Amino acid sequence: MVDITHEIPPQDVELGRLTVARYWRRFPSGTVHLAIVDPGVGSERAGIAIASDGRFLVGPDNGLLSPALLLPDARAVQLHVARTASATFHGRDVFAPAAIRLLADAQLEDLGSAASTPIIRRTPEARRGAQGELIGEVISVDRFGNAITNLLGRRATAVVAGSQELPLCRTYSDLPAGGAGALVGSTGLIEIVVRDGRASDVLSLARGDTVRLVDGPVRTPSR
Amino acid sequence: MVDITHEIPPQDVELGRLTVARYWRRFPSGTVHLAIVDPGVGSERAGIAIASDGRFLVGPDNGLLSPALLLPDARAVQLHVARTASATFHGRDVFAPAAIRLLADAQLEDLGSAASTPIIRRTPEARRGAQGELIGEVISVDRFGNAITNLLGRRATAVVAGSQELPLCRTYSDLPAGGAGALVGSTGLIEIVVRDGRASDVLSLARGDTVRLVDGPVRTPSR
Amino acid sequence: MVDITHEIPPQDVELGRLTVARYWRRFPSGTVHLAIVDPGVGSERAGIAIASDGRFLVGPDNGLLSPALLLPDARAVQLHVARTASATFHGRDVFAPAAIRLLADAQLEDLGSAASTPIIRRTPEARRGAQGELIGEVISVDRFGNAITNLLGRRATAVVAGSQELPLCRTYSDLPAGGAGALVGSTGLIEIVVRDGRASDVLSLARGDTVRLVDGPVRTPSR
Repeated sequence: MVDITHEIPPQDVELGRLTVARYWRRFPSGTVHLAIVDPGVGSERAGIAIASDGRFLVGPDNGLLSPALLLPDARAVQLHVARTASATFHGRDVFAPAAIRLLADAQLEDLGSAASTPIIRRTPEARRGAQGELIGEVISVDRFGNAITNLLGRRATAVVAGSQELPLCRTYSDLPAGGAGALVGSTGLIEIVVRDGRASDVLSLARGDTVRLVDGPVRTPSR
Repeated sequence: MVDITHEIPPQDVELGRLTVARYWRRFPSGTVHLAIVDPGVGSERAGIAIASDGRFLVGPDNGLLSPALLLPDARAVQLHVARTASATFHGRDVFAPAAIRLLADAQLEDLGSAASTPIIRRTPEARRGAQGELIGEVISVDRFGNAITNLLGRRATAVVAGSQELPLCRTYSDLPAGGAGALVGSTGLIEIVVRDGRASDVLSLARGDTVRLVDGPVRTPSR
Repeated sequence: MVDITHEIPPQDVELGRLTVARYWRRFPSGTVHLAIVDPGVGSERAGIAIASDGRFLVGPDNGLLSPALLLPDARAVQLHVARTASATFHGRDVFAPAAIRLLADAQLEDLGSAASTPIIRRTPEARRGAQGELIGEVISVDRFGNAITNLLGRRATAVVAGSQELPLCRTYSDLPAGGAGALVGSTGLIEIVVRDGRASDVLSLARGDTVRLVDGPVRTPSR
């Protein structure tokens, strides 16, 4: 049993989804991932189990497990909920028991009937602004206070967040102490960071805030 | 080795006790639970090891392990404290070594002499008010900010906390976003919650705050 | 796999180092410790693997692993960093893979070439003041808010921090509820503590703050 993290803030399905995306295929074939961020527990939202690329995933059908659903061979079933399950703790009463059955070699189809349209969340795509610049948003803030954006762009020179233009650098220590910048994080997405500090606090960044990619051609109005 | 939680706030023996209550019998016979919330470390408070319903529990004798002491077959011994043990870290110097000895098949009685009157904490009972209504209190706040009360009452329609009457619902998503309510939590106790928020912050609730159960007959003065 | 802690605050190499010091030799021979607090990730700072006293340690070469380097038999190698490693997550791309190779019985020398001058951090030494008193500093604040100092001194009677003289006691419960004091912590260093509270908050203590040891001879000016 490996505890990937218990540090997803309550209700933060999006950071959970990004975390699942980072890790699920790094574990060997046969791994059962139990992932729960579940503000809709006890409501009509279903629970699902997924088989994808040789791994299994169990959790709420709220987009958290989307990364595994995007593969062509993915199969999903809707978990049966026992009448005795509590309305507020499916982690204990539904998901963990399903994960244990998979570990005990149950077939995916033993756990429920096919889930025809499981919910899939994707990282929202950045859009092009009037001058061709990429406009994106902060999609999550991690436990270091780094603001993860939906921007890709290794050719960029800077990111604008609010009124600040932040230079694109390679790693934290390219910045002066306390300095703010942007870098391509370990997920491949651009993150806004502060060296030895919390960018979300220092720059007052939160999910949904608009960010804009500045690259050479765009920066010079004459071009 | 399963890490149930490291998220009990420092010194919060009561939340620790409720957590022990939730989990200790869900693990198989032979399990050794090591549970430590220990503000009295190094004082006269004893350490204990308990055998109860086929499980073992090790920790400070401050009420934390009460749930296991309530069973008729429970036996407890007072742990011997080595002279070399530090005065501030019995987790390392007393409790973990005792747990390891139990895992290595020591008998409970090998660890110390019978503890005749281990400390037992119970959830305080709610009382009846002048009009027959149940008056209880917030007994703990969990990491989601849910305020756990000592109220039981599936027939109730609402809970009053401070000046607010909160409707009793089945699960979080029965409430509007940001809305406050009450529900029967996974422990069977009524909890005061805020959808996608922290009830303890939004409603300024803390341990010891009075809460009152509103049910049909009580609500209508004419009856 | 044992998760010692995920509660070192971001960038707090010093608390990480003290934590490594507390635990690394308590695990059996052959243990591989993976310890990462790594504000300099992706910069020129190297990664190292160490063999010392029969244990192995893997992490950044920033002083975090110093406790194991202080032993005469310690050997260290500088880890090879694959060109495909991300610039911001060597935990995933460099350190964990190296730890796994050691667990799979690789030789230390298989992981890189000898590290000739790995960085060694030590607890700073307290100095003598004009009247012979020991003057030290807060070197870390732990998750309980205890302020760990670099003072040793079982004969002392008190510690002065800011304008307050704090009595030296044996354990937390020697203090009145909410009372502040000092005690010899489980590392052997003097800690400033508040019973059932956070000394760092109550006394506004932070790393680097000066503290002064008061002992019998020094306290009485006439002597």
